[in-house]
Amino acid sequence: MQSFPSRLLEDAVNEMASLPGIGKKTALRLVLHLLRREKSEVAKFSGAFTRLRDEIRYCDSCFNVSDTATCSICSDTRRDQSLICVVEDIRDVMALENTMQYRGLYHVLGGIISPMNGIGPSDLQIETLVNRVATGEIQEVIMALSATMEGDTTNFYIFRKLKDHPVKVSTLARGVAIGDELEYADEITLGRSILHRTPFEQTLQR
Amino acid sequence: MQSFPSRLLEDAVNEMASLPGIGKKTALRLVLHLLRREKSEVAKFSGAFTRLRDEIRYCDSCFNVSDTATCSICSDTRRDQSLICVVEDIRDVMALENTMQYRGLYHVLGGIISPMNGIGPSDLQIETLVNRVATGEIQEVIMALSATMEGDTTNFYIFRKLKDHPVKVSTLARGVAIGDELEYADEITLGRSILHRTPFEQTLQR
Repeated sequence: MQSFPSRLLEDAVNEMASLPGIGKKTALRLVLHLLRREKSEVAKFSGAFTRLRDEIRYCDSCFNVSDTATCSICSDTRRDQSLICVVEDIRDVMALENTMQYRGLYHVLGGIISPMNGIGPSDLQIETLVNRVATGEIQEVIMALSATMEGDTTNFYIFRKLKDHPVKVSTLARGVAIGDELEYADEITLGRSILHRTPFEQTLQR
Repeated sequence: MQSFPSRLLEDAVNEMASLPGIGKKTALRLVLHLLRREKSEVAKFSGAFTRLRDEIRYCDSCFNVSDTATCSICSDTRRDQSLICVVEDIRDVMALENTMQYRGLYHVLGGIISPMNGIGPSDLQIETLVNRVATGEIQEVIMALSATMEGDTTNFYIFRKLKDHPVKVSTLARGVAIGDELEYADEITLGRSILHRTPFEQTLQR
């Protein structure tokens, strides 16, 4: 992979390979694919990324990606405005929206507390969450972070910050995933799912 | 993956997912990665592809990608100008160059004959190859195409086209790959490698 026949090709391959999980060989394959497209198509391809980066905005309220000052979720009056679901990033919002089970609002932290990666509470949208809760209009905050050490730390930090406000704080249910066989579930998940067992009637409701 | 919070984000993800082998989920991950970079970095990223597509040139002689009218390989007078190696695309040139074993010139077809994909001889640089041979300066044409049905068809087509010219046509040696265990080699390869066995002294030369 050392000898590129063209400087332009080499630059394009290096840029493509700068994306996470894309190696030099894959990058070359993708770039050669682009090379076979029409000029206008490649311009459209490239333009989408610069336009996204230059014009992207974040919702003033929930900090989700948005084309407008207030995102379509926050401005939807049919949604429950007293419920906030706290997530790490945009992908989590999309995943939860796809379940069609949640009709409240969101708050996008932009990451989780991770001393290993140098991310502290001040790098995240925690202060703004506390301010939203302080308005008194929020009744419940649902913590929907990853079930990892860092997620738990962030949960705990936010829980303490919200302690003095009259708001209910809950987390996602942990348990055996639907479709999973019991023998492959790990002990901690299985243990928790026995401790927090659900009345059978509740499982019939949906 | 239906509900994107932003049109800009959706466009960027769709463009990324238009690359072969990149699904929607991966595309979103890559785009969110770009979103975290500086504006100038994203401009550099996008610019590399448009610049490549707009300014790319192909060598007048061998049709390899090149920044100049004649590529660095064709204009290298230390290389054997009487030897042409015929390959499918740029990646093959790079792979062969990396072996450091070949000191002749190349001819990049730009594909192989593939009726299934609607690629016929006229879509490839076959006429230009015949013209190069017709100059009378070429002594040997080495066919270095994939060992597939389509590669064999293309080999045969070119062989027939060059039949009336006083030029030697050869193909890459087929056989058991170096490092392979014999029991895992397929029958056809193994059969060919017995038929075209090499005098032992030849294997000692390198």
